[in-house]
Amino acid sequence: MEFNFESNLTSLRSSAPLVHNITNFVVMNFTANALLAIGASPVMAHAVQEVEDMVSIAGALVVNIGTLSPVWVDGMKLAMKKAAELGKPIVIDPVGAGATPYRDQVLQQLLEVASPAIIRGNASEIMSMAGSHIRTKGVDSTALSTDGLSAARALSHQYDCVVSVSGATDVIVRGNETAYVKNGIPLMTRITGMGCSASAIAGAFAAIQPDFFDAAVCAAATMGVSGELAGQRADLPGSFQIAFLDALEALKPAQLAELSRLTI
Amino acid sequence: MEFNFESNLTSLRSSAPLVHNITNFVVMNFTANALLAIGASPVMAHAVQEVEDMVSIAGALVVNIGTLSPVWVDGMKLAMKKAAELGKPIVIDPVGAGATPYRDQVLQQLLEVASPAIIRGNASEIMSMAGSHIRTKGVDSTALSTDGLSAARALSHQYDCVVSVSGATDVIVRGNETAYVKNGIPLMTRITGMGCSASAIAGAFAAIQPDFFDAAVCAAATMGVSGELAGQRADLPGSFQIAFLDALEALKPAQLAELSRLTI
Amino acid sequence: MEFNFESNLTSLRSSAPLVHNITNFVVMNFTANALLAIGASPVMAHAVQEVEDMVSIAGALVVNIGTLSPVWVDGMKLAMKKAAELGKPIVIDPVGAGATPYRDQVLQQLLEVASPAIIRGNASEIMSMAGSHIRTKGVDSTALSTDGLSAARALSHQYDCVVSVSGATDVIVRGNETAYVKNGIPLMTRITGMGCSASAIAGAFAAIQPDFFDAAVCAAATMGVSGELAGQRADLPGSFQIAFLDALEALKPAQLAELSRLTI
Repeated sequence: MEFNFESNLTSLRSSAPLVHNITNFVVMNFTANALLAIGASPVMAHAVQEVEDMVSIAGALVVNIGTLSPVWVDGMKLAMKKAAELGKPIVIDPVGAGATPYRDQVLQQLLEVASPAIIRGNASEIMSMAGSHIRTKGVDSTALSTDGLSAARALSHQYDCVVSVSGATDVIVRGNETAYVKNGIPLMTRITGMGCSASAIAGAFAAIQPDFFDAAVCAAATMGVSGELAGQRADLPGSFQIAFLDALEALKPAQLAELSRLTI
Repeated sequence: MEFNFESNLTSLRSSAPLVHNITNFVVMNFTANALLAIGASPVMAHAVQEVEDMVSIAGALVVNIGTLSPVWVDGMKLAMKKAAELGKPIVIDPVGAGATPYRDQVLQQLLEVASPAIIRGNASEIMSMAGSHIRTKGVDSTALSTDGLSAARALSHQYDCVVSVSGATDVIVRGNETAYVKNGIPLMTRITGMGCSASAIAGAFAAIQPDFFDAAVCAAATMGVSGELAGQRADLPGSFQIAFLDALEALKPAQLAELSRLTI
Repeated sequence: MEFNFESNLTSLRSSAPLVHNITNFVVMNFTANALLAIGASPVMAHAVQEVEDMVSIAGALVVNIGTLSPVWVDGMKLAMKKAAELGKPIVIDPVGAGATPYRDQVLQQLLEVASPAIIRGNASEIMSMAGSHIRTKGVDSTALSTDGLSAARALSHQYDCVVSVSGATDVIVRGNETAYVKNGIPLMTRITGMGCSASAIAGAFAAIQPDFFDAAVCAAATMGVSGELAGQRADLPGSFQIAFLDALEALKPAQLAELSRLTI
């Protein structure tokens, strides 16, 4: 397996893919700015009246259930169906999976509509989706990403997709293949929307790299390396949030390749 | 009456309570980041399909009517009913009370569902809720917090709750008891979401301190002291917003106790 | 034609008009902070139950279709109808016009409800509204603002309103009159919500300046000059976003007049 950090980021920057997000209210602004900073073009649209048209002009669809409600779920399903028909990659972010039965039911329904390219969540969420009886504390993980390995593998087999488990070490799985990305700093867990941005950026890479394992690994490394670089500028969460967007924008493809710590 | 600034903040940090917010679109990101920075764990969920489950795993519920609509009000009512059944503290933020009849009707309905632990608003909002015929200018106060004292006292008696009136001096009332917190700087009124964050942080303290008068005073002092510390770093609103989140994170319990200016 | 940069900004600051926004989820926080920073008082409210009451106490209404859905469109229509009855200026921001048929249909419906004072968009959006068969890439323009001149003129005649086309040079049109504002820097396109804030600030100026051509030109210059000043402090998008809010707050009326580069 080969991972193309440098060429993927170069390609993302030159093609500036449109990423269609149906995401939660809390992170919309940060997600849009993160996508712009990495070089993609974000759009948010959720109404059933337009999601099919929007996803048709997009390079990828990112579905995030952070603040879900039935009318939004309708839009998610319709967008996913259309994306699948058109062969556009879908990223699912199962925010808060395991926190309430409703979230779990919705996830189940979404995964019946279409198979995602990538599922990206924290360990609690991934373990919950795989049927572990773990209790997610709201939207925060109560488990280590490495604890989520077998759950990730099970999900990957079940839905024939890449599963990316964020944590101190990001664990990315496709079938029996596993990649570990050991980038990032603890401060990344102290601001909201980091995971959601990781999913959105995975969508941006999936829009330009048809090998979604490669795309998911690049996204994890991009987040982690940018977090480390931002951490050199800021050690408190408000200023870190800003430094992180700056780091995404300033990140050079060669630097991403050089600073990523990947083991397979 | 005793106020436990140092031990309350220490306790908040060590228990990291889950605070369930049903709040407005404008401030969700800032509120979530403020809760993380002070040491709590935020979650936003509003759908009737899941609010009861979410509030069941939370330490407190914060209801904010800033961008309300009927379907959100349904979620607020259901969450409040469940919180009351489970004995979880509820904080109400009456954003824009008095600005439109709809807001006033909704507030009335919410308060019939369950008695809050704390109502936190600006003077216009509190005076409007208490029946003064004051006109709120959108969501900004047109009155001094100290003008709101008698209104706060009336509300406190009516709903058997703590009422916290934010302003140059924060006035916190429980029945006939009154506490004044003279912290904070004018720049705090120049960014959106400060009041909403004050309510969310009151929820975080109420989750760990069953004496809600103590909790409300600690929240007011936390906001004010952090605002003052942030004001030493930034004198314009964009950078102040960031410095404020940094200050919340960096605030030490002993520092809170030392810098708070409380009179009773 | 005369443009009153200095007196308009002075008047905006002294009267602090309430600007009622029905806008998209992505930009609400930034828009509210931008309005506060320039000296206006923002309020967000979208429910049909209260938009008429809210717009009745506001100085201007700003309608932005960035994340539209039917229930929000109902609120937009009702608010616009009431604003028109009361003679309050309406600003329309046609975010993503041309990206989906739904957006185009909604825009058509909104413009049948009431004639706006100002339509402010990027060139793709304005050209799409005028019937050019241009494809908007999500919410980003694929055309130069100067390419939008004839489309802007057509729209201005059709709806008897001012049309402001944002870009490297902002082109503002009223009938056969044209003004060009050559302020701003490319970094302004690298964060989300800049266009939306431009529309909101146009609403703030329209609330205090009944000559909407003057108001739209002042808004464009305010954005561009503040962007240039912020660019002296920050060269990456995260920190630029913050520096921009700081610059709006710090902008002096005389400075606006001095630094604006207007040609007519």
